[in-house]
Amino acid sequence: MKLLRYGPPGEERPALPDGDGQLRSLAGEIEDIAGETLLPAALDRLRALDPATLPKVAGDPRIGPCVGRVGKFVCIRLNYADHAAETDAAIPTESIVFNKWISVISGPFDALHIPRGSLKTDWEVELGVVIGQGGRDIAEQDALQHVAGYCVVNDVSERNWQLERGGTWDKGKGYDSFGPIGPWLVTADEDEIADPQALQLWLEVDGKRYQAGSTATMIFSVKEIISYLSRFMRLLPGDIIATGTPPGVGMGQKPQPVFLRAGQRLRLGVEGLGEQRQLTVQD
Amino acid sequence: MKLLRYGPPGEERPALPDGDGQLRSLAGEIEDIAGETLLPAALDRLRALDPATLPKVAGDPRIGPCVGRVGKFVCIRLNYADHAAETDAAIPTESIVFNKWISVISGPFDALHIPRGSLKTDWEVELGVVIGQGGRDIAEQDALQHVAGYCVVNDVSERNWQLERGGTWDKGKGYDSFGPIGPWLVTADEDEIADPQALQLWLEVDGKRYQAGSTATMIFSVKEIISYLSRFMRLLPGDIIATGTPPGVGMGQKPQPVFLRAGQRLRLGVEGLGEQRQLTVQD
Repeated sequence: MKLLRYGPPGEERPALPDGDGQLRSLAGEIEDIAGETLLPAALDRLRALDPATLPKVAGDPRIGPCVGRVGKFVCIRLNYADHAAETDAAIPTESIVFNKWISVISGPFDALHIPRGSLKTDWEVELGVVIGQGGRDIAEQDALQHVAGYCVVNDVSERNWQLERGGTWDKGKGYDSFGPIGPWLVTADEDEIADPQALQLWLEVDGKRYQAGSTATMIFSVKEIISYLSRFMRLLPGDIIATGTPPGVGMGQKPQPVFLRAGQRLRLGVEGLGEQRQLTVQD
Repeated sequence: MKLLRYGPPGEERPALPDGDGQLRSLAGEIEDIAGETLLPAALDRLRALDPATLPKVAGDPRIGPCVGRVGKFVCIRLNYADHAAETDAAIPTESIVFNKWISVISGPFDALHIPRGSLKTDWEVELGVVIGQGGRDIAEQDALQHVAGYCVVNDVSERNWQLERGGTWDKGKGYDSFGPIGPWLVTADEDEIADPQALQLWLEVDGKRYQAGSTATMIFSVKEIISYLSRFMRLLPGDIIATGTPPGVGMGQKPQPVFLRAGQRLRLGVEGLGEQRQLTVQD
């Protein structure tokens, strides 16, 4: 099942696409795609609906972030073996965890803002995991039961702020629009995402493919990450985990790094989770 | 003006203490002490109320975190010159920024949970700044106008997870109950907090005073921190900034570090902002 949110920023309403791609409103069923509507029983209730009976959404509205009221936006760095090799980094022995401030969250087709004075704005296509049932100390074998669904994430960074301005990486990950999520929250059903460790990911800038990879080369799998994180924090419905990026970020280009400038067009996607498109604009 | 929230976790309701310390309900006036109720005009409306006309809150309810629906819990590390000297750390040339996951937030008198297997749970009394009017690229001279109020924060850490487990500090700052805030949100009025850079802070464990300092020794002042952070992220109403800790954390004790164990009692406070008390319990 694919779920999405449409409408102006901050006023998004829940919907799903029917078999013909026509958006059908879920506003009569749930308040939002957020919090408790991501619990297993609530998703089961949505699965049982016949989309044809739901009101059609008129026009061609903006598509918003696929989840509302996100509490935590947890990120895993250096989680692809081929990306680690590309950057000559050692394979981490346990996950490296960092944070994106939730005020970064934007829609999948919203503009990507390059901060004033930024010289090193960079991209990262990632598999996003959205938590359904929360918990702490979750066992690996139970971890996938805590997943409501998956989505595309662009984990945008300002590399100077992230790496050259002292302290932790959080400083370079948190500018407005640095976290598009969606277009869909694709629920973790067998017929949608049979195996989260066998998905292709890709990203293009102005038609040039920079990133191409597979979640098969993750160092820590989705279930390992969920179990690991839940030792250090309580996971809650609507939390998002960005699970790391495959090779091909701008910073890693040879012979010179490549960073974003205004007026460029990004396209990125994850197999089965749809595609994002962003136009870069200068702040 | 002092604002607080009372009631069971997750069901807190807004209130204020009258001149006799009797809690008076604000439930008829505002939905919560959160988000837009922290904007200047909304706070002015509360200031204009006569507490004697508000319903008395019966009994002796639990006091919850003083702000609801916190979006960001931003922390500044190594922000006291005397604490930097104590730990032989270099004075940072710009603020070191890290994150507490918002699921850590607890009430000022709630139990402080020591994680299973933790050997290095540690305390940090801090001045918390709660954002009212949000913004980005806020000038220093305007920064204090963006403050709704101040509160006591205990920025609890697991030092092994923070420092010895790879990557950023976020891993050791985010366990449940590691972020008590309150008891009050004290609004940034001249008659309450005339100068945020002239407040005493202190913390005791089982009656022994470990921390004692003054916000006068901050390396970066509240207005500098707000202006600085707003270059990297959009600040929003209800965001909390923990502004660093004065000397005397457990990790810094000589000749040996001292960490928390179950059954201990913490008391901590900031001048004008009230006092927190926590009993440690083992998870």
